[in-house]
Amino acid sequence: MDTCNHPIFTKQVVQLLMLPFTALLAVDKSSRQPVYLQISGKLMELIREGSLQAGHQLISTRQLAELLNVHRKTVVRAYDELLAQGWLESHTGSGTFVARHLPETKPKKLSQKTERLADTAQKAGFSFTPAPHLERELPQYNYTFHLDDGFPDARLAPLNDLSRAYRTQLLTGNTYQRLGYGDPRGSSLLREALSAYLNESRALKTTPENILIVRGTMMGLYLTSAGLLRPGDHVGVGESSYAGANTNFIHAGATLVRIPVDEYGISTDELDQICRKQTIRLVYVTSHHHHPTTVALRADRRMQLLRLSEKYGFILFEDDYDYDYHYENKPHLPLASADQAGMVLYCGSFTKTISPAFRIGYLVGSEDIIRHLAELRRIVDRQGDTMLENAMAELLQTGIIQRHLRKTLRLYRERRDVFCHLMNKELQDYVQFQEPEGGMAVWTRFAPGINLPALAQKAMKEDLYFSNGLIHGASPKISNGTRLGFASSTAPELERCVEILADLLKK
Amino acid sequence: MDTCNHPIFTKQVVQLLMLPFTALLAVDKSSRQPVYLQISGKLMELIREGSLQAGHQLISTRQLAELLNVHRKTVVRAYDELLAQGWLESHTGSGTFVARHLPETKPKKLSQKTERLADTAQKAGFSFTPAPHLERELPQYNYTFHLDDGFPDARLAPLNDLSRAYRTQLLTGNTYQRLGYGDPRGSSLLREALSAYLNESRALKTTPENILIVRGTMMGLYLTSAGLLRPGDHVGVGESSYAGANTNFIHAGATLVRIPVDEYGISTDELDQICRKQTIRLVYVTSHHHHPTTVALRADRRMQLLRLSEKYGFILFEDDYDYDYHYENKPHLPLASADQAGMVLYCGSFTKTISPAFRIGYLVGSEDIIRHLAELRRIVDRQGDTMLENAMAELLQTGIIQRHLRKTLRLYRERRDVFCHLMNKELQDYVQFQEPEGGMAVWTRFAPGINLPALAQKAMKEDLYFSNGLIHGASPKISNGTRLGFASSTAPELERCVEILADLLKK
Repeated sequence: MDTCNHPIFTKQVVQLLMLPFTALLAVDKSSRQPVYLQISGKLMELIREGSLQAGHQLISTRQLAELLNVHRKTVVRAYDELLAQGWLESHTGSGTFVARHLPETKPKKLSQKTERLADTAQKAGFSFTPAPHLERELPQYNYTFHLDDGFPDARLAPLNDLSRAYRTQLLTGNTYQRLGYGDPRGSSLLREALSAYLNESRALKTTPENILIVRGTMMGLYLTSAGLLRPGDHVGVGESSYAGANTNFIHAGATLVRIPVDEYGISTDELDQICRKQTIRLVYVTSHHHHPTTVALRADRRMQLLRLSEKYGFILFEDDYDYDYHYENKPHLPLASADQAGMVLYCGSFTKTISPAFRIGYLVGSEDIIRHLAELRRIVDRQGDTMLENAMAELLQTGIIQRHLRKTLRLYRERRDVFCHLMNKELQDYVQFQEPEGGMAVWTRFAPGINLPALAQKAMKEDLYFSNGLIHGASPKISNGTRLGFASSTAPELERCVEILADLLKK
Repeated sequence: MDTCNHPIFTKQVVQLLMLPFTALLAVDKSSRQPVYLQISGKLMELIREGSLQAGHQLISTRQLAELLNVHRKTVVRAYDELLAQGWLESHTGSGTFVARHLPETKPKKLSQKTERLADTAQKAGFSFTPAPHLERELPQYNYTFHLDDGFPDARLAPLNDLSRAYRTQLLTGNTYQRLGYGDPRGSSLLREALSAYLNESRALKTTPENILIVRGTMMGLYLTSAGLLRPGDHVGVGESSYAGANTNFIHAGATLVRIPVDEYGISTDELDQICRKQTIRLVYVTSHHHHPTTVALRADRRMQLLRLSEKYGFILFEDDYDYDYHYENKPHLPLASADQAGMVLYCGSFTKTISPAFRIGYLVGSEDIIRHLAELRRIVDRQGDTMLENAMAELLQTGIIQRHLRKTLRLYRERRDVFCHLMNKELQDYVQFQEPEGGMAVWTRFAPGINLPALAQKAMKEDLYFSNGLIHGASPKISNGTRLGFASSTAPELERCVEILADLLKK
């Protein structure tokens, strides 16, 4: 080695150089990490790996500084660091040593040591059991054209109002209280505003004590499943039903019991038969517009469903995901509005009102259940986003949400009409559908000869996304069907979507 | 009755009046709920309750309008509503009837019917099992003076910057993509910014694939517990340890195994002994400043802990809740920085950096575990707040968070010094403590004769809040101790806090 005659090369240095020490301690002055931290970090690694053993004397700070071509103060700071943290110890007059209380380490093989230290592991060092039921494809958002599951058009959302309200919440009031920990049930402002809003718009009879603010319907489902279901419980769901809900019930260890669905929603007579034979813990229902087929639950079945719930004691989980978007008459009032026995857990969200990115929803139920689920929520994520919740409360109280609902109701009705008209005109040989009375998607069944997954795949190449429908399962009534969402696209965009579909189908 | 001779009183009307019908249908014109919805809602209730049976003929719209003193169109709209929803049916020429397909209902007793319809039930109609381990007192935030668990001073937080960044995120870019559903692991912007930040500041070696954005440390603990623990597992925790973590492990069905803690942190020799005897699935450690006693884990124990984790295959959960606040030397690097075997789950948050209200934290681990926990997270609450995550990424990239950290580090050190000086001066006969090297709270033990819960109670009457310490358990080493947080109060505020305490103790 060239440098071996350099005066700083004491016995220890040579000893150290038997390891590729300079390389291992090389500093990167262009890094944003301070040099002294680089040095102390690397020395620590050498100690940990066993290259520097307990009791080993270190090269002096002056020597190391010269070797590494850095200022001596930098090395002093690195050594001080390690002294303070107990990696090194200093004996007056005789120098600095690797602390003797450190455990012995067998040095790793040189081949391993010379490698650049690996990134954080790709694989866990401990065992774990994967959960195949949780593996689901993510929806795609990066296509210019989309006929999605039924999402709103966030371009219409009152984002400026929201931003202003958020800013006000952030910057005014008692900072310590407002930005501290709060009630796991959610901001009291929002619970009050929401209670009034739900009572007015849905004829519920809530107080704020009946409301748990959640981060969207998914969290309502999760808390209910984790807090009220036990492994082995039976849960009644439509055949077919919302996959996100099914996944949650399965994850909680429940067995799904399928209830037939026809043009009036789930069959309550069949449910009655099922309940006679086995204990059902919970029935999941999207009474307003059945997911995925968009049909509304008929009045007699609504009554019967409530009655069965009281008779058999099952929880009625009412997912009212698109209550606000009904285009013919006024929306049917939720089952929850007629529940006087505390059987219904009513869940809604602002996902369809504003956008999926604003994770604010609500779970409505009896006071004791709300408290029970709030206790669980507290260990899940402590609480929601108080600032955003307060901002949303302001938009409700000032009527901005309500105005936005009226505006989008009108626009989405027009978009539904445009889309159904286009499908009838351009795709009549290929699809079957009923114009939905509400919601943001058309349940569309493709002719038996059409390979829906292949079609969805081809469409993506033309910059159009829609679900291949596999998520809805494969029962005869829903096979080759998928939801085509119209609300998030303007009329010209919908035209282009149908044009792409027509071109692909006519090929 | 006065009104019985009125010409609109047909047979049906009289029949209806045998019920207290006018009272039951009374409308409230001052309500924000439209009158026609009030009428249809109440008619629906009468049908549901059995007061109006299937096949019953309804009074005409004109008659009902006169009776209720509302415009006829209002009643027509209410009837149309009920016709559309299947509650009523119309037979041309003969009038409007309660739909015959509705199930028969036994009318409730009159006494029940005349009562105002009850609010949403206070008690659930179905059974459920309370979870006593989740019942914990909420911290109090509504006192002028506070020596809390160790919270930051949100008055110093870069709220204007945050508000501006949030607004930018909200209003720019492709709305559909940005405000749609995203990656359950969190915003890619934040995962990239955070990966760089953690690598620089903590010598981790992450890529964004190693990072799961969570809503604070609590969610990191929850996902780990729910996703990796099974009932019957044994979890090692300090004696004592952070109560929020313990609750999560217990909720997942684990048994806590207590590891002794001394002035150098948890005893790894004792842990080794424990591991020889039984399988430990996870060890929870706050290596930087032990919670609650604030001591740092010594270097040799750090090494041994990693080695034990590899030897026995347990998960090492490193909760680095206050890494950024170390006042003496540079902070000790996290265990995670030396983990090459994928044993460590490293968890941090911005709770202490900005405020508890901003629920953004991160879980760092091997890629497979991060994917596994992200799948679970997807059914818990789908994803975080993309807008806030992106805003935080911007504050990290522009160095605003880092500047804020430097500023507050200086201020909190001053506050620690002021507070410890005041305690030494004013409370020396009553308390014992060691000046903490980092963090935001002083672990304070009160003299044996002092009734700490009673003292905390009295202090609240003087507008001062601090924890009565019961949450930390009752082992001899921690009894009569509590955490007194200094960071959220200015020097004059701290003076007042100590003054209140001194007055109460000297009484």
